[in-house]
Amino acid sequence: MTDNQTRLGVVLFPGFALLDVAGPMQFFNQLSAIKPFELSIIAKTMDAVYTTPPKNTVPESKFDRIGEAMLPTHTFDNAPEFDILLIPGGLGMRDETISNDVTSFVKKQYPTVKYLLSVCTGSLMVAAAGVLDGRKATSNKFAWSQTTVHKTVDWIPKARWVVDGNIWSSSGVAAGMDMTYAFIATIFSPDIAKELTNKMEYEPHTNSEWDPFYEIWNLPPK
Amino acid sequence: MTDNQTRLGVVLFPGFALLDVAGPMQFFNQLSAIKPFELSIIAKTMDAVYTTPPKNTVPESKFDRIGEAMLPTHTFDNAPEFDILLIPGGLGMRDETISNDVTSFVKKQYPTVKYLLSVCTGSLMVAAAGVLDGRKATSNKFAWSQTTVHKTVDWIPKARWVVDGNIWSSSGVAAGMDMTYAFIATIFSPDIAKELTNKMEYEPHTNSEWDPFYEIWNLPPK
Repeated sequence: MTDNQTRLGVVLFPGFALLDVAGPMQFFNQLSAIKPFELSIIAKTMDAVYTTPPKNTVPESKFDRIGEAMLPTHTFDNAPEFDILLIPGGLGMRDETISNDVTSFVKKQYPTVKYLLSVCTGSLMVAAAGVLDGRKATSNKFAWSQTTVHKTVDWIPKARWVVDGNIWSSSGVAAGMDMTYAFIATIFSPDIAKELTNKMEYEPHTNSEWDPFYEIWNLPPK
Repeated sequence: MTDNQTRLGVVLFPGFALLDVAGPMQFFNQLSAIKPFELSIIAKTMDAVYTTPPKNTVPESKFDRIGEAMLPTHTFDNAPEFDILLIPGGLGMRDETISNDVTSFVKKQYPTVKYLLSVCTGSLMVAAAGVLDGRKATSNKFAWSQTTVHKTVDWIPKARWVVDGNIWSSSGVAAGMDMTYAFIATIFSPDIAKELTNKMEYEPHTNSEWDPFYEIWNLPPK
């Protein structure tokens, strides 16, 4: 994959967590200056996708949450095949239609991807697609009980990220950056990964078992 | 500012660094669930703004860089006044027209903002607006010599972020997240800032003088 063009796909859905996408993408954006990449941003339609969670997915509040909009390049129906497919999490997936759409897309794409990456609660939709059955994975620690409902998966509560076969899953939001660092170090090279983080002035956690949020959110032992 | 609505503005320009915007915005998006915010995303026109740097701002390469597009809500001409204005950096500001447009906007807005925040090379445009004259600031460490050309500013080479008066400036890309943590801890509350990072599973650097990238990029002593 280091010489040929890497076909990278990123899924968006209403109420995705901005950093779940932008953390990993800052790495891949920079990497694309020295390695050939082709990026597809996939959503249900070609309309702009907002990070703002749909009203039915969050408790009623005095305040309207702010958010940003990103543009897709493909829809779930016309997306090509990918070497790497990234599934973010976010509050919007509490909407069953949204969640089911992403799950169906994962199910359709998984047989042809080289690597499937999930960030945060995105692993719930990967699990729902059945592709984590009998495998290890992790997820968001604050939302642990809601995101680890598929008991066919061997959920690892104390982990910054987990790799099993060709599926990489990270813990919540910012953990996606550490997973991406490790992924690029493994798939491309450690030197390239280090060069990227030195330029973005990010000091990654390189131990996949580093996880203070396991204690902070009082997770049950495995 | 903790009880009234906070009017937050974020500038986009072609070739902005995604994480310069998305790092701080992940904090503010989450914060807006518990504190009232009004967000404006400002660019030259209402067209989508791509992170991909314009061709004239990067060395010729075998590869086309990949990037994402975000949507503005206002233009430089019709933007309202702000309590907090965030200026990201990115390769696109090497284009003089792009850089001058942002600089003019900073100059116009500064008299009415409560706080001006810059991430990464964004501080070059803040400096060009003249509002850092005689003040301390920092910037991206890899691009230090190009971004600290305004010698009327007291540039601090070893710093994760710097505060002088109502201007906060961070070091490169990921440093914007640590600055935002400190900013929210100062302006809202330390407990709120901690709650946000616990939920995003981010362990911030809380010492503004922590800066391994000062050594990594061989910066001159002050």
